[in-house]
Amino acid sequence: MAGPEVFLPEGFAQVERKRALCRQYGMEPSARQGDFLKYEGGDKFTFGTMISRHNEELMDASDIVIANLTPFRGVSADPGTVYELGYMVARGAKAFGYTNTARPYATRVAEDHYGGDTRTAETGRLVGPDGLMIENHEMIDNLMIDGGIARSGGFVIRHEAPPKARLTDLTAYEACLARIAETLLGR
Amino acid sequence: MAGPEVFLPEGFAQVERKRALCRQYGMEPSARQGDFLKYEGGDKFTFGTMISRHNEELMDASDIVIANLTPFRGVSADPGTVYELGYMVARGAKAFGYTNTARPYATRVAEDHYGGDTRTAETGRLVGPDGLMIENHEMIDNLMIDGGIARSGGFVIRHEAPPKARLTDLTAYEACLARIAETLLGR
Repeated sequence: MAGPEVFLPEGFAQVERKRALCRQYGMEPSARQGDFLKYEGGDKFTFGTMISRHNEELMDASDIVIANLTPFRGVSADPGTVYELGYMVARGAKAFGYTNTARPYATRVAEDHYGGDTRTAETGRLVGPDGLMIENHEMIDNLMIDGGIARSGGFVIRHEAPPKARLTDLTAYEACLARIAETLLGR
Repeated sequence: MAGPEVFLPEGFAQVERKRALCRQYGMEPSARQGDFLKYEGGDKFTFGTMISRHNEELMDASDIVIANLTPFRGVSADPGTVYELGYMVARGAKAFGYTNTARPYATRVAEDHYGGDTRTAETGRLVGPDGLMIENHEMIDNLMIDGGIARSGGFVIRHEAPPKARLTDLTAYEACLARIAETLLGR
C-alpha cells in the first residue's frame, strides 16, 4: 500500500481502514504500524532515512503494490508514492493504482496549473506560458507512472470523488482490491 | 540521466549538452536520442507506454542514475524523474541527484504551496490550512527520495540557480559529475 495517507490529520486511522479492506479481499497488507518508529530527537535527516529504509524493506517483502495516485499538493501524485511505484515495478512486482479524480493529467496541468493559459507552440506541442510542454497521453499522470503500471500487468482505477473527500474516499481503492481479487486470486 | 528536460522548449539540445558533459567526466550517458520515437497518429496512451518502456530499458542498461530533482510545476521534482529514481534504487544502482534550489522541501511547501499559512497541530506536527502534515527532515523533497539516494551510497548537490535558469542551469549537474568521477572513477 503506497499513498500519502501518512500526511492526513487522521492518517494512521486511514491506513488501518485500508489495511482492513485489503484483508477483506484476501490479501495481507504491508503498511507499517502506527508506532513503528518514533522521533526522539537528534538528526532529522537521519530519522528520515530510517523511515525510508523501513518503507523499502516493506516493499522488498511485498508481491504487489496498490498506489494511491490521487493528486497531492499540485497536479501530480505524492512523490513518495511515485518513488515506491517505480521501485516496485523495477522489482518485477505487479503494480496497481487508483486516483480520486477522473480528470486526465493534461487537463489538470492545463487548467489547474496554468489556469487555461496554454498555446500550441511552433513545434506543434501544447505548452504553458513558461514554454514547458504539457504531456498528453490520455494518462492520469506522467507517462512513466501509467506506462510502468501497464507494463507490469496492472491497471489504474479512475474515480471522481467529492472534492472534500479527495484524499480519503476509498471507493476507487476498494474497486481496485475487488478487481485484483478477481483477476489474481480468482475470487 | 533522469530529468524533466524533455518538457523544455529546447529540451533535446539541453539533453545533448548534458550528454556531452557526462562524457567529459568519463561516463557514457544513457539518454535517448532526439528522434528515438516519433508519434505518427494512433492511440496516445499506447504511444506513451512505448516511451515508458524505452526509458525503462535504458535504465535496465545503466549502472548509475543522476536525477535532476529541481522542483517542476510545484514543490516537488518531476514525477517521471522520481519514478526513475525509485526504479534505479530498486535495481541496486547508485543514485545521485541535484536540485537547482537550495531551499529545503519543508520551506518550499510552507512558503510556496501554503503561502506561509501554517500552524502547529495538537499532535505537534506542522500542518497547512488543509490539515496535511508538512514533512520536515531537512531534505530536498519527500523522504523516499533523499533516503533512497543516501541508502544507495549516492548524494544530492543543492545549488541556488538564478530563477530564470532554474530548469536549465547545469552548475549543480556538473558538480555532481565531478564528484562522481572523483569518488567512483578516482579521476
